[in-house]
Amino acid sequence: MSTPPSSTNAAYDRLVARFGRIGAIGEAAGILSWDASAMMPPGGGAARGEQLAALAGIRHDLLVAPEVAEDLAAASAEGAWEAANLRLMRHAHRRATALPTSLVEAIARANSNCEKVWRIAKRDADFAKVRPLLEEVVRLAREEAQAYGAALGLSPYDALMDGYQPGVTAADVDPVFAAYESWLAEALPKAEAIQAARGPAMPLTGPFPVAKQRDLCAAMAATVGLDFAHARLDESLHPFCGGNPSDVRITTFYDEQNVAKALLGVLHETGHAMYERGLPAGFARQPVGEAAGMAAHESQSLIVEMQACRSNAFLEFLGRKLHAAFGGDPTPYQAANLARLWRKVERGFIRVDADEMTYPAHVILRFRLERALIEGGLEVADLPAAWNEGLQGLLGITPPDDALGCLQDIHWHDGAFGYFPSYTLGAMAAAQLMAALRRAEPDLDAQLAAGDMAPMMRWLNQAVHAQGARLGFQDLLRHATGKSLDPADFTAHLSARYLVD
Amino acid sequence: MSTPPSSTNAAYDRLVARFGRIGAIGEAAGILSWDASAMMPPGGGAARGEQLAALAGIRHDLLVAPEVAEDLAAASAEGAWEAANLRLMRHAHRRATALPTSLVEAIARANSNCEKVWRIAKRDADFAKVRPLLEEVVRLAREEAQAYGAALGLSPYDALMDGYQPGVTAADVDPVFAAYESWLAEALPKAEAIQAARGPAMPLTGPFPVAKQRDLCAAMAATVGLDFAHARLDESLHPFCGGNPSDVRITTFYDEQNVAKALLGVLHETGHAMYERGLPAGFARQPVGEAAGMAAHESQSLIVEMQACRSNAFLEFLGRKLHAAFGGDPTPYQAANLARLWRKVERGFIRVDADEMTYPAHVILRFRLERALIEGGLEVADLPAAWNEGLQGLLGITPPDDALGCLQDIHWHDGAFGYFPSYTLGAMAAAQLMAALRRAEPDLDAQLAAGDMAPMMRWLNQAVHAQGARLGFQDLLRHATGKSLDPADFTAHLSARYLVD
Repeated sequence: MSTPPSSTNAAYDRLVARFGRIGAIGEAAGILSWDASAMMPPGGGAARGEQLAALAGIRHDLLVAPEVAEDLAAASAEGAWEAANLRLMRHAHRRATALPTSLVEAIARANSNCEKVWRIAKRDADFAKVRPLLEEVVRLAREEAQAYGAALGLSPYDALMDGYQPGVTAADVDPVFAAYESWLAEALPKAEAIQAARGPAMPLTGPFPVAKQRDLCAAMAATVGLDFAHARLDESLHPFCGGNPSDVRITTFYDEQNVAKALLGVLHETGHAMYERGLPAGFARQPVGEAAGMAAHESQSLIVEMQACRSNAFLEFLGRKLHAAFGGDPTPYQAANLARLWRKVERGFIRVDADEMTYPAHVILRFRLERALIEGGLEVADLPAAWNEGLQGLLGITPPDDALGCLQDIHWHDGAFGYFPSYTLGAMAAAQLMAALRRAEPDLDAQLAAGDMAPMMRWLNQAVHAQGARLGFQDLLRHATGKSLDPADFTAHLSARYLVD
Repeated sequence: MSTPPSSTNAAYDRLVARFGRIGAIGEAAGILSWDASAMMPPGGGAARGEQLAALAGIRHDLLVAPEVAEDLAAASAEGAWEAANLRLMRHAHRRATALPTSLVEAIARANSNCEKVWRIAKRDADFAKVRPLLEEVVRLAREEAQAYGAALGLSPYDALMDGYQPGVTAADVDPVFAAYESWLAEALPKAEAIQAARGPAMPLTGPFPVAKQRDLCAAMAATVGLDFAHARLDESLHPFCGGNPSDVRITTFYDEQNVAKALLGVLHETGHAMYERGLPAGFARQPVGEAAGMAAHESQSLIVEMQACRSNAFLEFLGRKLHAAFGGDPTPYQAANLARLWRKVERGFIRVDADEMTYPAHVILRFRLERALIEGGLEVADLPAAWNEGLQGLLGITPPDDALGCLQDIHWHDGAFGYFPSYTLGAMAAAQLMAALRRAEPDLDAQLAAGDMAPMMRWLNQAVHAQGARLGFQDLLRHATGKSLDPADFTAHLSARYLVD
């Protein structure tokens, strides 16, 4: 389908060579970052910092060199893929040249200072400690948003979102999130009542030896379709998916007492990994050969983990595999019990521990607060109170302290504004893609119950993976499902899973 | 002792920043190369090639940029270390600018083509298959040697040696090798007679479980002084030492039936690793902060493996550790038996299998042949006959085919001429350093018998490691031992070890 970039346009060809080099350096940095988390001895950290800084500096230099602007002005591209590639090159160049070096350096310094103090403030549940540093981060993020916005013709907050998920704006997100808030206000008490009436789940009793967990996780990743001739599974404190499309590396963290953590985590990361593996190889290391953004990426991890692997059908298969691996009483491994264990709705303070129904509430809260922080209307001093009020409104609970409130996430304290919506856009897109997939594959549940994910992954490959970054978020959804973001598929999914007695 | 580079000279400071970046990219490439051997899934190879090529290209671009020549012309440096650093920068720049790009590309292509066919020719013991490709490699290597020689004011072959071990020339090596040849002609039959009279060694009977071998190897590396907060020990097909001074990575290959292979190999690589660890941290990623060359590096692996760890004293300690790890009959683990097993003189065809007494003969053969190939006097067509005649003269044996003769090593078939002498220069330097160390540490044997390598490694650190690349090979030996290369220490070592009944 995708062919290697080719053009008789010399300027475009030079750009392809340059962006190929930039892409190769990005891949190198990706492996070094993976290594830092999964392999590096602790004493290697300072040198690794120098290595990554050198690569980042060189990437930037290659991107902003004067001849790039000339070639971008002169270049034309034949073919839709080449045209998209050129558009993305121009976009990357506009972003790279939008900020003066002095601002980039000030941001890096402020983020680094704030992030360090945030760890202490969070540990001590003491927002006052980090407040002045976060104020500086926000002040600079506003400058950054203005500068990106001016360069890209976007509003300041949209310009930050664009850095994580191009092709979707706050105007797209706002009504979708408002509708979800209304739906949740009615649905959540119903789900809780149904769950309470059902009674508690039987626990899975460990220990679950790490070696067996590792084998099972690798086998399940292979079931999803991961080819270990092009992939690794390792361990790190915080699980992630790194590497590059021909050499994708997922990590997890094994807990001998809790088999679900690594297993569901690996299925999640395998969804990310399959996206990377399926990107168009003919455009490797070119902008159009990359993934379409963070929300698109999250849609692929969540469609595997949440939509497919936590479905009743797949839990049948997974329960058999778990019991075969660990033995003992088969009763807790029955699909219905796994569903109770792994699909439990619960109002909580912590986003990363949230279930799929309440998770969007945590994101909606952050989206509204960060948008107000960037566009004005909220100051850092007022953040803790606004946070607590917002969570009370969304979930009816108030954090007892800021460690369980506005200090819980690293994002803002490291200068990342505009990222949070991606989580929920991804969850909604996953449901929307799953609904389209079910129309295309009427036998999907039978396939999942048999552990056959090949038809699903083939469909996702064509619909999403092989599209690379050719389409922005909304266009990708239109291509894959026939409509732009529609939260009705997500609420329908949740209703079927949590609101049926 | 060493302080961070500093100077009021703006040109020197710019060069330090630039070479720091070049050094960081080199470190990044080092980790990626390690990863390719020790971690990478096979499918990642093509992308890894793109990544390493991009990094090599950028290093080269940074080195040959026009402003480098200007800064090198303008720069002055305060202090001996800074002056040496500047000298090495000029040297690196001269080498990088010596070859026209067209020649660099032709060499890369010819080497790659030849190397591929060499694997088939070696498998088939059929020199004719690779001959035309090797002729092209040699033709280009002659051009390369001419160009480097003109840029550096060295003879063509010396200019190639300089790429691996600066500070030593063929004129230094030739008489040293000739003297060794004469010594060996007398010593080898004597050593063989003594060995024969002694009777065979008792074998160490496995299996030796890999997990236990791994623990023992790590413990022995730690005994030498390796700090695993700054190091890793992993597995790869061909053992090596990679990484960088604060994050050094050694690999080995475990054989359940043969414990010596991994154990002695790890001790060898640990010698390399200790050199890297001990390089002057104040000049990290600067030319003067690197090791002094390949012969200097080999001296550090061999002084640990051959001089210290195969000594009678250390074999006492090692035998106890081996028996403690694997149990069974203690008799074969006695030092005298380990000495018979691991210090066995044997005339063979294969360099990498050779003992320390006959190994130099293999190197002398290659040194003479490759010098004649580069400087004229030998053509590729005549190589197999010259090889066989040379080995007959040196060791009194003739290879039955070219796979056991001139096809056995990759070096020439991959364009590496001038490297081979480093092995034997390193072995000789190791003996010379050991003799000096014994004068400084009269209790060395008692220390080694107790597994206490700290005094030895402290001495080596001061004498060699902490000197970085400040001194060339001969100057480094003069600094550390009071004299330039003197093979008498090596033959004295061999005489004491092999010629005493």
